[in-house]
Amino acid sequence: MTEKLQEKETETVRIVETEESAVDPKLVEQLAEILSNETEATVRRFVADVHQADLADLIGLLSPPHRHRLLRIIHVDLDPDLLFELEDSLRKEMVDILSAREMADAISEMDSDEAVQVLEDLEQAQQTDILREVPQEERLDIEKSLQYPEDTAGRRMQRDFVAVETDWSVGQTIDYLRDEKDLPDEFFDVFVVDGDRNPVGTISLSRVLRSARDMPMREIMDDTHFIVAADMEQEELALLFQKYDLSSSAVVDDTGRLIGMVTMDDVIDVAQEEAEEDILRLGGVGEEAVTDSVWSSTRKRFLWLLVNLGTAVLASLVIGQFGATLEEMIALAVLMPIVASMGGNAGTQTLTITVRSLATKELTAFNAFRTIRKEFLVGILNGVLFAIIIGFVAMFWFQDQEPTRHLLLGVVIASAMVINMIVAGVFGVIIPLAFDRMRIDPAIASSVFVTTVTDVVGFFSFLGLAHWILFT
Amino acid sequence: MTEKLQEKETETVRIVETEESAVDPKLVEQLAEILSNETEATVRRFVADVHQADLADLIGLLSPPHRHRLLRIIHVDLDPDLLFELEDSLRKEMVDILSAREMADAISEMDSDEAVQVLEDLEQAQQTDILREVPQEERLDIEKSLQYPEDTAGRRMQRDFVAVETDWSVGQTIDYLRDEKDLPDEFFDVFVVDGDRNPVGTISLSRVLRSARDMPMREIMDDTHFIVAADMEQEELALLFQKYDLSSSAVVDDTGRLIGMVTMDDVIDVAQEEAEEDILRLGGVGEEAVTDSVWSSTRKRFLWLLVNLGTAVLASLVIGQFGATLEEMIALAVLMPIVASMGGNAGTQTLTITVRSLATKELTAFNAFRTIRKEFLVGILNGVLFAIIIGFVAMFWFQDQEPTRHLLLGVVIASAMVINMIVAGVFGVIIPLAFDRMRIDPAIASSVFVTTVTDVVGFFSFLGLAHWILFT
Repeated sequence: MTEKLQEKETETVRIVETEESAVDPKLVEQLAEILSNETEATVRRFVADVHQADLADLIGLLSPPHRHRLLRIIHVDLDPDLLFELEDSLRKEMVDILSAREMADAISEMDSDEAVQVLEDLEQAQQTDILREVPQEERLDIEKSLQYPEDTAGRRMQRDFVAVETDWSVGQTIDYLRDEKDLPDEFFDVFVVDGDRNPVGTISLSRVLRSARDMPMREIMDDTHFIVAADMEQEELALLFQKYDLSSSAVVDDTGRLIGMVTMDDVIDVAQEEAEEDILRLGGVGEEAVTDSVWSSTRKRFLWLLVNLGTAVLASLVIGQFGATLEEMIALAVLMPIVASMGGNAGTQTLTITVRSLATKELTAFNAFRTIRKEFLVGILNGVLFAIIIGFVAMFWFQDQEPTRHLLLGVVIASAMVINMIVAGVFGVIIPLAFDRMRIDPAIASSVFVTTVTDVVGFFSFLGLAHWILFT
Repeated sequence: MTEKLQEKETETVRIVETEESAVDPKLVEQLAEILSNETEATVRRFVADVHQADLADLIGLLSPPHRHRLLRIIHVDLDPDLLFELEDSLRKEMVDILSAREMADAISEMDSDEAVQVLEDLEQAQQTDILREVPQEERLDIEKSLQYPEDTAGRRMQRDFVAVETDWSVGQTIDYLRDEKDLPDEFFDVFVVDGDRNPVGTISLSRVLRSARDMPMREIMDDTHFIVAADMEQEELALLFQKYDLSSSAVVDDTGRLIGMVTMDDVIDVAQEEAEEDILRLGGVGEEAVTDSVWSSTRKRFLWLLVNLGTAVLASLVIGQFGATLEEMIALAVLMPIVASMGGNAGTQTLTITVRSLATKELTAFNAFRTIRKEFLVGILNGVLFAIIIGFVAMFWFQDQEPTRHLLLGVVIASAMVINMIVAGVFGVIIPLAFDRMRIDPAIASSVFVTTVTDVVGFFSFLGLAHWILFT
């Protein structure tokens, strides 16, 4: 990142010509160096020129001792933006350093949506202590937002917005914007409301700027005007913004009155967060960041691994049923993981596609059956292809067995492969669909179920067929 | 989705009160019904009221025969927005129906960034045929954008934007916006350029609207002004927008001249796409959608499964080395998948976190070593915990073995578990880091390597220790 500072008459504009969004590694090293050897004043001077979003990244990259020192130094005269930008676990560290009074000052300076996002992660007692110190007007706004369930439009919305009445003209609107002081820092649209404060239209600022002063606002409203209820889930909200390319949307309470707006920049984070959550959940980890401590990471992963231990033991119990068969022909023990592993991989492929299609609403009740049938067919096709390959591999590998036995071994593993690949495809789509129907996030629970099925079916079909074809 | 149509004096505003971003399933059924039984005119009437983004979703949900009929009907007087909104494989179907002339008409009506996004997916010959029919002015713009590499700012940028000179006032700017016809449909910022058309500042429209007419534009420029090079990767671009909450950014060519702008709505899709890509790649599937045909899905998944077959056979080769040991004690065959499976899951957890942290730049060269050490420690901790659990399980399960043997069996599986969990943690972070260093996307290749390592180490350590401790 190259930066130039250019003096303007009134203030300094920082021109950033970027190749990369990442913080410069040299900057991290410099800061680490300064934190090891220099005085508080030097640290302050170094940090003063850094954009708060970069500072938040820098803090995440520092080693714990350096980080603690830096947080202690900057907690005085804290920039509220930094508090907002910090990654969850780091923000908790910062909040623990700040007094309720200091937190309240920072909170009061933020936009209401940012204040809510910082406060909602804190414990109830901490929240109450801080809110007590926030001036009444801001406090009431924040408290009202906090009454909406987590992850809803009510939590993400900003309570400052621009609304004009239906009979206003463009000129009146511009004059109002120039005079009014209590407006959000940045906004992209103006809402038109009727006498009951029900929103009836949205107008983008570029449209306002391009229209003549005497144009009535109601004549330049967008063709489509989106109103969302404050209890709408943020995931839905993000999909809505993406699908219709919205820049902001009006939020109404249950009487239909305009109470806030959600803007695109709030939602870009949500879309990313939700996809992120799916990735982590599919990988068997919950909300975990690279900055988490060893203890916290161990704890977060333990439960998932324990569940997996259960399924692994279950698979072993299946194998245990065929002890006598295995004893007769040790080649079976050698080949047995292949069928289970291929089923697990094929199941994971189908599962991944299904989970994402459900999240983006490309898969609904309407095409569910068609999708199951398709996965069944894909399972047959890939099953037959891999059955042929592995059948021949097994025959040639164990040629030293009794004459017909190695041929039959090929047939056994090929048949088990076809069965398990079909099972993988069908369960890979049915299991997440079922969870989705039960309103359980399919990303979190499906993968352990799918691999349990493919392990059990994999071992059972291979060893069962072997017992039946080879030894009876 | 509830919709009301409200008559305005000049046109119709559609007010959408949404609970869900998904299309109404009843709408799909109705459309399917109409496509089965009704005339072309009825289909047209039904479709006329639907938002193009919804129509694109509807088309994705229809069965192939219904979809073909609908595409044939709407290809006449096609709304260019629909072409842009359609999901890749569906858009290809639509393009095959349209003549080069019809495509060119649609392309000419689009914003330059949308036109590029539609054209870049087509084959070279198709592209040339269509571009030949596009009016020169638009064609040159599109061709210039297409010269930048795929997935860069140059491809995503819009060539229409608003730039004013440093000595302009707010009033002059507003007058210019009112008079000029050739402006983008929607924009959020105005750029300030010097005499050489180098961008020197960004001003949000809300700032313009709130300032007095005689205010010089250069005095209200944003504190930080971002300039990106046209060859910047779109993934970087998305991170930049998210990190600094940008609404648009100036794009410059290699001489530093302003040639376009990227807006937030272009980037919200990119952030989602990139996370999506990681999910699919981690799940062992490439660019696949739920609407893909059976053949195309089978083909796309085959390669990954083939690679996995290779690793499964490799694991079997390891087991094959211990044929004699297995023959001595069949309990080993029963327990053997547990260690490998736990290692695979622990490795996947670490891998998932690592891949995402690399993508979001939370993990860099600066904290790489610290992260490896952390994963090593998490591996030891969870390794010891699960070693104790599985050690006791194994001892009690196989109590019928010779007296000391079942105790030793517990020791063997416990030791193998610790070893494999540590290996899983360390390789789970080292492998994606190495791929990232080699500039290979860690999401695509890491998981097969990690599970190969945990399978091989899992089987080898368990059977090797068993051979060494129990039978020598």
